[in-house]
Amino acid sequence: MIEAAAERLKGWARRTPMLSSPFLDDLAGRRVMVKAECLQHTGSFKFRGAWNAISAFDPPGVIAFSSGNHAQGVALAARLKGIPATIIMPSDAPRTKIANTRGLGAEVVLYDRASEDRDAIGARLAAEPRLTLIKPFDMAEVIAGQGTCGLEIAEQAAEEGVETADVLVCCGGGGLTSGIALALEARAPGLRPRPVEPEGFDDVARSLAAGGIRANDRLIGSICDAILTPRPGDLTFPILRRLCGPGLAVSEDQALRAMALAHDRLKIVLEPGGAVALAAALFLPGPGEVVIAVATGGNVDREVMARALALPGEG
Amino acid sequence: MIEAAAERLKGWARRTPMLSSPFLDDLAGRRVMVKAECLQHTGSFKFRGAWNAISAFDPPGVIAFSSGNHAQGVALAARLKGIPATIIMPSDAPRTKIANTRGLGAEVVLYDRASEDRDAIGARLAAEPRLTLIKPFDMAEVIAGQGTCGLEIAEQAAEEGVETADVLVCCGGGGLTSGIALALEARAPGLRPRPVEPEGFDDVARSLAAGGIRANDRLIGSICDAILTPRPGDLTFPILRRLCGPGLAVSEDQALRAMALAHDRLKIVLEPGGAVALAAALFLPGPGEVVIAVATGGNVDREVMARALALPGEG
Repeated sequence: MIEAAAERLKGWARRTPMLSSPFLDDLAGRRVMVKAECLQHTGSFKFRGAWNAISAFDPPGVIAFSSGNHAQGVALAARLKGIPATIIMPSDAPRTKIANTRGLGAEVVLYDRASEDRDAIGARLAAEPRLTLIKPFDMAEVIAGQGTCGLEIAEQAAEEGVETADVLVCCGGGGLTSGIALALEARAPGLRPRPVEPEGFDDVARSLAAGGIRANDRLIGSICDAILTPRPGDLTFPILRRLCGPGLAVSEDQALRAMALAHDRLKIVLEPGGAVALAAALFLPGPGEVVIAVATGGNVDREVMARALALPGEG
Repeated sequence: MIEAAAERLKGWARRTPMLSSPFLDDLAGRRVMVKAECLQHTGSFKFRGAWNAISAFDPPGVIAFSSGNHAQGVALAARLKGIPATIIMPSDAPRTKIANTRGLGAEVVLYDRASEDRDAIGARLAAEPRLTLIKPFDMAEVIAGQGTCGLEIAEQAAEEGVETADVLVCCGGGGLTSGIALALEARAPGLRPRPVEPEGFDDVARSLAAGGIRANDRLIGSICDAILTPRPGDLTFPILRRLCGPGLAVSEDQALRAMALAHDRLKIVLEPGGAVALAAALFLPGPGEVVIAVATGGNVDREVMARALALPGEG
């Protein structure tokens, strides 16, 4: 399915670059390779899964719920396919994400993340016969689309002569992490995926440690909006459990520092939730001489970037 | 020479991506393609020319003068070759550029841009027999190295089906612009290079208009430090005159707005002098349905980026 997704994405998604900086290597004490998915269309990897799922289903219209990156991926994919998209977004999503989703032509429906159940809203709207629900992660076609990022990581690591490394992935519901895990299992078994989450929202790490699905206590109160999900998915968790190393968690301060260093050293723009893997690569100890971090998204409000850039000094 | 340079750069320089955003297309009223050379090693295209020249000369040591981007390109190339580098930099260069050049292992010599003649200092130091001068632009091997960027632009435009467009290039001494011009002449004659400079420092535009070399009145007083040069080069100007369309100039405010839009829409970090071509693509009228802008560098101090991000609204 991932290979089929790669065929569908050819000429539509970007093959994002693998970046690096000797300064980051020095800081981390090991070689740091950064897969810059923030440079994907709509500023995050989400376009991959959205394009693959919509291409596979070929529906007359789509609906999705998302804090903003899946929203934009679905909106652009639908626009390119010439079909309507309805997107259900939390009212506290970053305003640029809401504006961009509307700017890409989607109809946006807002809901209160603390008091309303987005799955119920989604199920109700998806009951409309002309709208096909494109789930943010727990859907095979979406996982396969995100997995194309893993195929590229396997190729790019091989080009650099890297056979053994942890591959750190910013993880919400686990769609990208499980897709990458499946791709690496087939193409680069020496590369070990590991989910990275914000401290206090590490449902995946706790689920992996417990051997069964654990939920987050809360879904608000982090700047890492892109990766705040209630719990790992029913499809994604068994994949994560079979293929991933232990989960990692970083603080908000570490995520902001990673954003500033990505600005200084890689010349890329990351959002907090898209920077947690780089933060883990830079600030947490890890095995081996090389670590690969997936920089999953860059849809950040200017004020949040300015906050990161106002932090003192290096690292 | 450009093809030979491309061979030397293979596996050492990055093939930087061509980026785009439907939001920028809407803003400009035409399709905008952005060659993201800020993602090149050391954060600017300069590594290309430095690596090619050092590879061609194979010297025991090198010397260079630069406001910061050529400095870093030469410093990294020398480090990778295992030879010493001495870099002469203006004392008012952005502090990150000075720190990065030192961080890459080069010896940095500072001079006063307003009162001292960097060419004389360079000539004196280059008299040392063990140091080969790597000029920032007026050197055939450097022009050929920068020209590899033009080969990539020709390929990437063809991949997108673009045969006719202006190619806007941030222009200081004209090394990159002339290299790109030569590559496009051979590979994509429908793509027309045009230099872009800051208002008040448009020596290349005025030289092109006059049909002979004209100098800038002053060399300080612009945030576009990367592209403030006294006058076009003796090697570069005849190439620019033969192959380029008329020069363009943008204001500092336009450069800062382009930086903010590159942050928002492309997820790349640009410095002011690396953003003038994108600014011209977005804010100045131009012919045709497509325009290509070369985003030449991203080595910006955090304060300057914060200033760009504090600008109001879109565009």
